[in-house]
Amino acid sequence: MDRLDRQFDFIRETDGLKQVVRQSYLADASRRENDAEHSWHLALMAILLGEYADKDIDVLRVVAMVLIHDIVELDAGDTYAYDSEGNATKRERELKAADRIFNILPEDQAAYLRSLWDEFEGQETKESLFANTLDKLQPLVLNDASGGKAWKEHGIKLSQVLERNKNTAKGSKELWEYAGKNFIEPSVEKGMLKR
Amino acid sequence: MDRLDRQFDFIRETDGLKQVVRQSYLADASRRENDAEHSWHLALMAILLGEYADKDIDVLRVVAMVLIHDIVELDAGDTYAYDSEGNATKRERELKAADRIFNILPEDQAAYLRSLWDEFEGQETKESLFANTLDKLQPLVLNDASGGKAWKEHGIKLSQVLERNKNTAKGSKELWEYAGKNFIEPSVEKGMLKR
Repeated sequence: MDRLDRQFDFIRETDGLKQVVRQSYLADASRRENDAEHSWHLALMAILLGEYADKDIDVLRVVAMVLIHDIVELDAGDTYAYDSEGNATKRERELKAADRIFNILPEDQAAYLRSLWDEFEGQETKESLFANTLDKLQPLVLNDASGGKAWKEHGIKLSQVLERNKNTAKGSKELWEYAGKNFIEPSVEKGMLKR
Repeated sequence: MDRLDRQFDFIRETDGLKQVVRQSYLADASRRENDAEHSWHLALMAILLGEYADKDIDVLRVVAMVLIHDIVELDAGDTYAYDSEGNATKRERELKAADRIFNILPEDQAAYLRSLWDEFEGQETKESLFANTLDKLQPLVLNDASGGKAWKEHGIKLSQVLERNKNTAKGSKELWEYAGKNFIEPSVEKGMLKR
């Protein structure tokens, strides 16, 4: 039963992801979303938008990757995309978290989830590039829908969004073009995102 | 672009699942969880616990099923497992919701998600039996961890939990046995669940 005990320990531990709050607001702007909600949304998007990946992808691998990509934030916390100070120490904090959290699982599954997370972070394989595209795209959807609430609170500029999204087209040119026309350009026009 | 418009309409619409509150409390009992968080947790469990399904299963199909299984609650609301009045009208309310919500998507994807939901509800295929096992198991984990908070609030009895779980072993005998020994029996002993 030790294997099941470890698996359920991990399932209980990761329940905490429902309390790691991100900067993005829900579409109706009523409150910020958390990591568990964000990860669910990305997994659903992976299933619906996988057809726009530039190459044939293993959808299950993308889904598994987005389901676990923020688990390190249980210890490391959410680092806002535009927080340069936080981002300077982010990698170190997240590596330490990965060492602790994934190892709650039985050894083979700890290695599997760690390899998924390392792959996501590496942004080299087609699956990780697509997973990263979804991870960047989803906050654009929510910012647009919520009247740019998080962007306005932080006074974010178009140049910061473009820098943040420099790799988004690598997972899907089509989705990046759609996001530009439907989420970014209108946000600039409406003054939700500074020029 | 019409296809992408419909897909993003669906992605925005389903953001509302983050605000459909369930009866189960988080593991730390601080607040109730919502459908998006619950669905994320089930998808993670599907990946980690798929090895205990009684037959070889298509894990991606199980994951997709649990990601979408509660989307009908956007319109129909969450019906508590032990609310007999609510459960009398649940099926009708959920069918109406399924007709509206899945059809936001392009026709082929609407049909795919509807078939996943119908399969989940049917509890006949091995994938749907396992998905249902996870859906019943996760509240047991949370009730045990949170000191039986939701059970105590509603004065739930062991017999109700056993009736509710009459099909849980059909997806995995091993997980059902583990749940009995680790979540249900100790809850009765501690008085978190009435005899």
